This record gives sequence, C-alpha cells and structure tokens, in this order.
Amino acid sequence: MTTTATTLKGQPLDRQALDAMLRRRLFFTPAFEIYGGVAGLFDYGPPGCSLQANIVDIWRKHFILEEDMLEIDTTVLTPHEVLKTSGHVDKFADWMCKDPKNGDILRADHFVEDVLEFRLKGNKEARGEKVEEEDDPKKKKKRKTKTEAVKLDDNVVQEYEEVLAKIDNYNGTELGELIKKYDLKNPATGVQPSPPVAFNLMFQTSIGPSSNLAGYLRPETAQGQFLNFAKLLDFNMQQMPFASASIGRSYRNEISPRAGLLRVREFLMAEIEHFVDPEGGKKHHRFPEVDAIELTLLDRHTQLAGKTDVKKMTIGDAVRNKVVDNETLGYFLARIHLFLQKIGVDMSKVRFRQHMENEMAHYAADCWDAELLTSSGWIECVGCADRSAYDLSVHAKKTGAPLVVRERLDEPLIFEEWQVEIDKKKFGPQFKKDGKTVEAALEATAQEQREKLAKQLTDNGELELEVAGVGSGTVKVSKDLVKIEFRKRIENTREYTPNVIEPSFGIGRILYSLIEHVYWNRATEDGGDEARGVLSFPPTVAPTKVLIVPLSANKQFQPFINKISQKLRKIGISARVDSSSATIGKRYSRNDELGTPLGITIDFQTVQDSTITLRDRDSTKQVRADEDTIVAAIQSLVNGAKEWKDVAAELPAFEGQEVDVTVR
Amino acid sequence: MTTTATTLKGQPLDRQALDAMLRRRLFFTPAFEIYGGVAGLFDYGPPGCSLQANIVDIWRKHFILEEDMLEIDTTVLTPHEVLKTSGHVDKFADWMCKDPKNGDILRADHFVEDVLEFRLKGNKEARGEKVEEEDDPKKKKKRKTKTEAVKLDDNVVQEYEEVLAKIDNYNGTELGELIKKYDLKNPATGVQPSPPVAFNLMFQTSIGPSSNLAGYLRPETAQGQFLNFAKLLDFNMQQMPFASASIGRSYRNEISPRAGLLRVREFLMAEIEHFVDPEGGKKHHRFPEVDAIELTLLDRHTQLAGKTDVKKMTIGDAVRNKVVDNETLGYFLARIHLFLQKIGVDMSKVRFRQHMENEMAHYAADCWDAELLTSSGWIECVGCADRSAYDLSVHAKKTGAPLVVRERLDEPLIFEEWQVEIDKKKFGPQFKKDGKTVEAALEATAQEQREKLAKQLTDNGELELEVAGVGSGTVKVSKDLVKIEFRKRIENTREYTPNVIEPSFGIGRILYSLIEHVYWNRATEDGGDEARGVLSFPPTVAPTKVLIVPLSANKQFQPFINKISQKLRKIGISARVDSSSATIGKRYSRNDELGTPLGITIDFQTVQDSTITLRDRDSTKQVRADEDTIVAAIQSLVNGAKEWKDVAAELPAFEGQEVDVTVR
Repeated sequence: MTTTATTLKGQPLDRQALDAMLRRRLFFTPAFEIYGGVAGLFDYGPPGCSLQANIVDIWRKHFILEEDMLEIDTTVLTPHEVLKTSGHVDKFADWMCKDPKNGDILRADHFVEDVLEFRLKGNKEARGEKVEEEDDPKKKKKRKTKTEAVKLDDNVVQEYEEVLAKIDNYNGTELGELIKKYDLKNPATGVQPSPPVAFNLMFQTSIGPSSNLAGYLRPETAQGQFLNFAKLLDFNMQQMPFASASIGRSYRNEISPRAGLLRVREFLMAEIEHFVDPEGGKKHHRFPEVDAIELTLLDRHTQLAGKTDVKKMTIGDAVRNKVVDNETLGYFLARIHLFLQKIGVDMSKVRFRQHMENEMAHYAADCWDAELLTSSGWIECVGCADRSAYDLSVHAKKTGAPLVVRERLDEPLIFEEWQVEIDKKKFGPQFKKDGKTVEAALEATAQEQREKLAKQLTDNGELELEVAGVGSGTVKVSKDLVKIEFRKRIENTREYTPNVIEPSFGIGRILYSLIEHVYWNRATEDGGDEARGVLSFPPTVAPTKVLIVPLSANKQFQPFINKISQKLRKIGISARVDSSSATIGKRYSRNDELGTPLGITIDFQTVQDSTITLRDRDSTKQVRADEDTIVAAIQSLVNGAKEWKDVAAELPAFEGQEVDVTVR
Repeated sequence: MTTTATTLKGQPLDRQALDAMLRRRLFFTPAFEIYGGVAGLFDYGPPGCSLQANIVDIWRKHFILEEDMLEIDTTVLTPHEVLKTSGHVDKFADWMCKDPKNGDILRADHFVEDVLEFRLKGNKEARGEKVEEEDDPKKKKKRKTKTEAVKLDDNVVQEYEEVLAKIDNYNGTELGELIKKYDLKNPATGVQPSPPVAFNLMFQTSIGPSSNLAGYLRPETAQGQFLNFAKLLDFNMQQMPFASASIGRSYRNEISPRAGLLRVREFLMAEIEHFVDPEGGKKHHRFPEVDAIELTLLDRHTQLAGKTDVKKMTIGDAVRNKVVDNETLGYFLARIHLFLQKIGVDMSKVRFRQHMENEMAHYAADCWDAELLTSSGWIECVGCADRSAYDLSVHAKKTGAPLVVRERLDEPLIFEEWQVEIDKKKFGPQFKKDGKTVEAALEATAQEQREKLAKQLTDNGELELEVAGVGSGTVKVSKDLVKIEFRKRIENTREYTPNVIEPSFGIGRILYSLIEHVYWNRATEDGGDEARGVLSFPPTVAPTKVLIVPLSANKQFQPFINKISQKLRKIGISARVDSSSATIGKRYSRNDELGTPLGITIDFQTVQDSTITLRDRDSTKQVRADEDTIVAAIQSLVNGAKEWKDVAAELPAFEGQEVDVTVR
C-alpha cells in the first residue's frame, strides 16, 4: 500500500532529506543515542516539545473546554487484576514469527505485507511498468536484495492485492496459512519463519518491595477513566451524558518498531470517554451543528471486497444511511475532522477507515480510524470506537462496584412477578459450604420455573431444584427456608450501564504526519541550487511564532531587540532572537526549517524611526510599520484572526532585498 | 518532628476533615479503588488535574520562558546500562527491615523515627506535659497501642532528639546499630526487625519481544537531559551557560508509601539542568536581581549539632558568607522561593534545608531542599542540587561521546612539555594482548617521569617501565617503538565538562502542601454550627475561576448564563455553571470547597437591567455592575493585575443577603 508521498507543494517528498532536517533541528531524536539507542524510543527536542504542547493545547480547547469534559489524570502503573478483567492480559497481543536460522523476530502481518508488496514491485519491473520509489529509508535499507523482476500471473497479482487490502483482518492462524500458501521467506535469510504466536504488548513490572504485586504499564488511558466512572458521575451531579478525558503516556512493547515516530513503544495519547445512554439510538444534541460536514470514508464492506475506494459523504448522510452506526459516533468523527483541519493537516490526505470484524479490538462494537497519508502509507492517527458497555460491565461484575446510572423515572414502572425470598439465617447452617451456590441457583430461576416451584412449596412443603455440583445434583429446600410469591414491584428509578464512545488520539503520529503534510522545498520552487526545506505550520501550531533578527551585531540594535522581545513575551507569544553572525538569509533559512511563521528584522532604519519589518515565511514577502502596529499584526496572525494576505493588504510592503549582509 | 498543623487562619488543622473534603470534591482519589487500591498510586480528578495544570503553567512561565530554557520531553523507559552508569542501579536504594514474626516490611529510617517519636511522646505524658495530637490519621491508625507514659532520663531525651535531628544522615549499618542500641521493636508484633538491607527503588521491566533488554522506569527526568547534552548545546549554537528543562513523570518503588500524595510511587516532576562553566566561581549574571531576597535557612552544621534552628538571611549574604556555595545555586534558591510565593504557599511555612554529607545523593556536591510544613511535618518539595560534572563525566567515559564544551580561546595557550609518540603499528605485534595496557601506561606517565624515560631512550636505546600485570611487572620498550621529546603545543580551544545545578520539583508534593496552606474553616470564624471548608487558592492557581449561579431554574436566566459563559471562555477563563436545585448558599459552599475564587449571580434584576453581581470567595462580599465591567474585573483578578480590595473600591457593593432561595 505504499504511495508516492508528496510535499505541500506537490513535489516528491525526499524522506531522507526530511529526516535529516528534523534531526538537525532537534524536533526529535532517538533516545539514548550515545548508548546506541533503543528501537521505538524517541526524545523530543525543544521544537518538537513545543509543537507537541501546541497540538495538545488546541486539542484541549477543541474538545475538553468546548464540551465541558471532565479531565482527569490517572496512573500509568496498573495492577494485573484490572487488565486481566479488561481483557488486555489475554487479548492485547500481536502475532509474531521467528526466523529459525538467524533468530530474527518478525511481526507476522508486517512480514506478509512486506513480502507481497516486494513481489508486486518485482512484477511491475518485469512488465516494464513504472515502479514507485520506496519512501521509507529504513525499509529500503533492510532489504538485502534488490527487487527481483519476476513476472506474476494476472490472477496472482489480483490475489495479492486483495490480501493486502484486508491485511488487518487476518488472525494468527490465517497469517500462518498465507505464509505457507505463498511460501513467504525472510529476505535476510531466505527461509520461511515459524508459525505466528501471540505476543502480549504490555510492559510488565512488579509493584512494592515484596515483588508479589504484578503490574503493567497501561496500554491506553481508558481503564483509569472507567474505574473512576462512579466518582465522575457524582462529580457531574448525576447528569448524563458526559465525557471524561485524559492526556497521558501509554506503552506498547512493539515487536519490531520501525518508521520513526509512527510506531513507538512509549507515546502520548489523548483519549475521550463519552458516556451515553444506550437507549434512544445514541443521539447527540449537537449533531445538527456537524450534519453538513463532508468526510472521506472507507467502509468495511469495500475493504472486505478487496478494494480501497473511498466515498465522500456528509456525516449527516452517513448516519442516516447507516454507514456510520449512530449520531454520537458520527458527531465525534466530524469533530475529529475539524480538529485535524484546525492544526493544519492536509485534508486531501485524510480518510476515515472502518475496522473489519476481526480487526476490531476485543472491546469494540464499531470503530473508525482517521488515517493520514504519509511516506509510510496510510497511518492510523485517531481511533473512534464504540466500546458499548463492555468495560464498565466487566469491571462492575468483577468488583461488585455499581458502575451504573440511576435515573429517576417520571412515571414509575409497575411489575407483577414471582419473587424469591430466602431466609439467609437458616440457609447457611442447613447447606454449609454449598449455601451460596444454592442461593444463587434459586435467584437465577426464571419466572415460569418460579411458578412451578411455588406450587411445589404449597403442595409438598418443599421444592426440588437442580444445582450442579451440589450433592447428587438435586437439592431439596423446605418452605421455612424460602418463600416464592406473586407480588407487585414498583420501580421509581431506571438503572443502566452507559455505553462509551471513545475518540483516541496518538499525538506523536499526528505530529509526525502533520510535519510531512506541511513540508516543502523552496529550491524546486524558485530554481535555487540548494535544497531549502520549509515547514509551513499554521501560526497557531508553530513551535516558535517569531524570529527576531538584527541586521548585524551592531550594539545600537540591542535596545530594540529587548523591547520587542518583552512586548511579545507579555502577550504570550514565543519569540527567539538570532543575533548570530550568519547572514540574514541563512538565519531565515534556519527558521524556515523550524517552521517559524514570522520574522522581524531590526535595521538602521529602525534606529532612526522605530519601524520594523515583518516577514511571512511562506511568501517571503515583507511589510514595514511601527512596532505597535507590527505587534498587533503578529497577535492577530498567531491567534488565527487574520491571515498574511489581510496583513499584506493593510500594511505597506517593504521591498528591501534580503541582502546577505555578513557581520562580524 | 511532628508539629501541630494549622490552617490559613491559624485554626488547628483537622486532617481527617480535610481529607474527606478533598475526596468528596475529587481533587484526588486512590487509584484502582474499586479493586482495593494500590498503595502509593493516586488519580487526580477534575479539580486536582486543573490545579496541577495551573501550577505547571506558572512553573513553565516562571522558569522556562523567563530564562529561555530548552524544554525537552524524554522517555520514561530507560535501558539498564544508562542507569548502571549513572549510579542508580547500585546506589538508588532505601534501607528496608523485615519483621521476622509477621513479615512486615519497614523502611528503616521511618521505623527508627516513629519509635523514637513515640517514646518521646510517652515521656511527655509521664511528665504531665502537653502532648501534640498526631495529625496524620494513617500513622495514628497504624499504632496498635496507645502511647505508654514512660518517663525517660533527661540525657536519653536529648540523645533521641539529636538522633531525630540528623535521621536523614544515617546509613543502613548505622540504622541497624540504632535499632539494636535502643532495642526498637515493631509495635505491631513487639519484636525487633531484621538488620536493614538495601532495596533498589526502581521499577524494572524488559524491552522488546525477546525479553533480553533490561530496563527501568526512570527515577528522575535528569538522565534524559544529560544524554542529550551535546545536541542541546548545538541547538543553543554553542552558547554557555544554558539550561534544559523537562516536565514529566518519574517512578520510585517506595517501600511503604504513606501520607497520601506526599510519598507516592508515580509522580510528576519538573526538573531544570542548568549547565555552567565550573571555572570562575559559578557566577550568575542575574544574581543582583535576587540578592536582597530573604530566605529561611537550616544549614548542615546546625543539623549535625542536633538542632533545627533556622536563620533568616538574604541570599546575597548567604552566598557571600559561604553558607550557600555559589551564585548560581543561590540564584535558583531565590527563584524557587519566588515561585512558591507566586502560587500561594504560606511563606512562614517554608524553609531551605541543606543536606548533610551522608544524606546527599551519590551525584551531589551540595544540595538544599525547599521544605514545606504540613500536618505530616516538614516535607521536601523542591531539591536544588549541585551535581558537579558527575553525570556528564560518567556518561562520556562510558560511551566515548564528547559531552564537553569547546570554547575558542581569545589568546591561544602555549605549553612546552614532554610528549610521548607511540608507533602503534609496531607496538601491537611486539606486545600482543598486552599492547593496549603498555600503551596506556606510557600515556599515563607524568612530565618528570617522561624526562627520565627520554634519557633512558637516548642512553640505552630502550626504556624500562613498571606495568602492573604485564610479564614480570616491568617491560622494556625500544626506541623504534616510542619517541619521547620536549616540544611546544599550542591550544586554541579550551575544553571542559560543565557542572550542573539542578532545581527539581515534586509537583504532587507542592500541590498537596499548597492545599493545606490555603485551607481554612469558615465555621470557626463566623460562629456557624456547621464546619464549612474553604480553599483560598490565588485566582491564578484556582482550578476553576468563576462559578455562575442563576438564582433559580427560571428559564429567563438561561440567555444570560450562555452569554456570560461564552464571554469568559473567549478570554480563556474557566467557569462552571451550577444551576442545580440546591440553595445559593449550598452552591457557594460547594465552590468554597473547590477553591473557586469568584462567583456570579444572575437574578431578576439581571433580566431587567443586565447587571450581575460578583462575589469574593474569601470575604463573601459582593459588588454589582454591568456585564462588561464585571468581566473586566474578573480578568484583572485572574491575571493578577488587581486584588479584590481594588475591585471592591471601584465597584458599588451589593448588600443583597445570600438568601437561600430553594428552587425546583
């Protein structure tokens, strides 16, 4: 599924050049690099850290503040029992194969995908068709052999393509069968790997000095939110629906991390758990606000048919046509779309893909991923799952905690029914260790059975009940121990377990994909001979908003630098001064790479009349005005009230060339 | 060292009432409580989460933005080798004892402290002196026995008090000796616990599918910053001094967590690593700005003399008198003082305590803790250590990475010296496996020795050198393998390993101590019969800034609620609407407990003339004005530009009683 990646301006994206630039500018860097590094662990340097903070800040405003969600902060360390109950201990696993020759450990689905894509490429070469360049340099490097130009039959090509379209839908056995069927071999050794086995993705540790409390690093923030459900409902004064939200790190012990920030072992998540009444079709009162928003959808049926064709559709139509199951799920898909747009993602490189049955997490009833197109293909950046009542139910069952909503009914409900009343004081002594089992069996009887048992009590003074595992399998209970009567029951409250709609964001994946979407190359555009990378972040997201550049190291400029820095700091706009001895052009070029949207030059005219120039990163155009006017312009650009074209229309253009004045 | 804790208004602090209030309002809650909880793990609910975010936000502005620090975000997972090198694998441990009877695991220093404090209390009782109440309910509960009134000799009392004053200075052997000497017994069983053994406080895990890469959860964020030193120096364009900073979670597997948020296993830290040239006395160019700030100091010598008397001193005098080692360390102590003041800490409950020799972490050259007085005694909330060149040196030595600063010298330095030149090609074949050892021994020779060896080469054509472990312990090296000559060497750059000053903040401890400092009780003040807790957070720190209260559920109020909510949201001020059916008094009381500083009431007069009232939490006084005036007043209160008394002087007071109007 590799697709030729392009820059913001449609140029072919040179992944290696981009990676080098990001490392040079310290957006991120492999963690522990001086110790040789650890796969899947990355540190964010100052620009990456700031970019991440800005994305999180916009996220918090767009979701939490906009909808009064209850933000909580829970622990990463999680005891075994919690994740056993949630199903993660048993089911949170990937399929892993081992190469019997060199001991390589391979993630089974990625292995199948890689080898089939490799063969399809070889086929194209053999047929003399254009072969797309491998964008991911790491993937490229891993290959020991060059693509072999082997022609495949048309039906084989179609078969491979169909397998690839639904690669996420195979379980371990099926992946093993594909490996055998197509005789897939590890390119490093030329041998077929062992059949896939499940590998649990959670990091394990033990808590406390006696080492007997097993625990894990959480694989998601969700469980901490579910366990606090009853307290949050209380805090929300019993009002439904409501959402909790959490921003924090989670951990997955990936089998073979690759593709930089896109598959890492420690990552920042932002997760929302929206609790909703399962009755009444999961409506959302703000759905009309998003009804007309058009999304790009790739549904389950299309994928199972071996295709990847997307449909454009308003979310309103998608819900009405049952492509998307319900309004609340649809509401959040549209809100996710708006969020991605707000931070500057290229919306022509976004699709919402529905999970296929086997692909869905063990807890999910329906799930859509927002996928972003990058040089590593379509990357899942946001998941939006309907977890139904799964989690609250299993935790309530395990702990006995009432993770339910009790709603006062306007009209009380009246039931007429057979009720069982057990005299517990006498029950224990009579049945000893089997007491509880017999009690439970009595409680579990259905209405019709109760009617019969009541008759037995009246007729015989005792009833006979089958209870597996107690005595001969049939027990007798006399009428002084139990009563069964037909009575009226009035319910004033309705009790239900809410369903959960969960939008879940991988911040690192979004951050990296965004970088690819806003990256372009100035050289190709203006015909210069040196590649000059630019990151066109929107001002709201950019790590630093303003670069302040004095024309030279002349001391006369210093008071102006100090004054403008202080003014910007006071209104909360991050600026950096570059008074290094590099040419102005080089200094602006460095900041193109950092994605700084605005530049201020302080020159000799500033000393005379206190005017300064403001430069737009993307167009390299400049305007000139007095300090306060420029600061006001910056503020309106940074808070999103204006765009550059508005500022350029209002203020006088400055045509001074970007002269490369070299200074001491 | 228990001290009677008081509220903001000097009332005795009822710890149990406070704890109950904080849990009721969901500031924090034991994690996994429905599963029985795990000691030392806590979740923050919405108000705690918001309070934490506000403290972090002020921290970021006060430190990172104010001084252009380089913020980075590094991984928690850390491979074994890194923490082996840093010394944490061998030395990051507490002393632990085991009760042989019931298997209780006790932290040795806490155990000694508890038993001695218990005996001192018994002595006071026996002497008929006033005994302070135990504030910490958990500690109280743990005791099976009541204090026994046993009188102690005066010299024993003095001995115990001296031990307690320097309790942090004992190592495991010494703690074991104290246990034997004073026959200290576990109150739960009446037996003496086993001698203390070291227990490493790091959580261990393994990284990757083959389980062979051992790793830990970081115990501090510092190592991630040190490992990126060379990249950060590059990013800072080789400018020194500079600081990096990091805000993130760290983990310590505490032996027996207690005292709520004060000793937990997972916590948020904010750490600064300020890199400074060790030469020139570690001056700081902004030191004059803080010179006159007065701090409360408890130095090392006082504690070693068995006392806890503090001294008040300006930081300028403290540095000049060598109480505090250097300007940079002093500068940060003063900045820490200002930060604590800014967030609303009661400065009469703050002291800076110097570490004693044995108490200091293995990497520290000097260290001062900012301690805050709480109901659990004096709590270390900020550490400020001079880590010298320790960390950078050990990592550089282990990895070979040049974690140094290279500074171009204005005047080149010229050295005349004996230089050793080894012909490595011939050296290997001659000495085989001992080659490297002999080479190293030659390189390690001092100037005088070289002069003698040069003479041997000239005179005998070979030199004789003692090399332990090679052959007979003396090797001969002939002149075709080595030259030793007197030459001139010119150095244009100076190379040095920076020293590190590290201010390190435990955000959770600060947050909890702050809560105790701003807590008070309205009942005792105004003579009411019901205890009404208040948290007087400064508006900048308060979780929610404004409570909006409609007088009743009357629908006429809704448009006004919406309008004022939107206006506040637009200027980034967090507000909450409480339109519940509780009385206005109850609703304000609930928000006293949440620490919401301001309240807006919307009543029938609002509907007529669009005026609203603004209420001050602390004085319960109200003013009334039109919406825009009130919003402007709120903004100036929240950003700290004005205090309530300013607003009260400017706007007309509203004397309307707080009538408890019960609504449907």
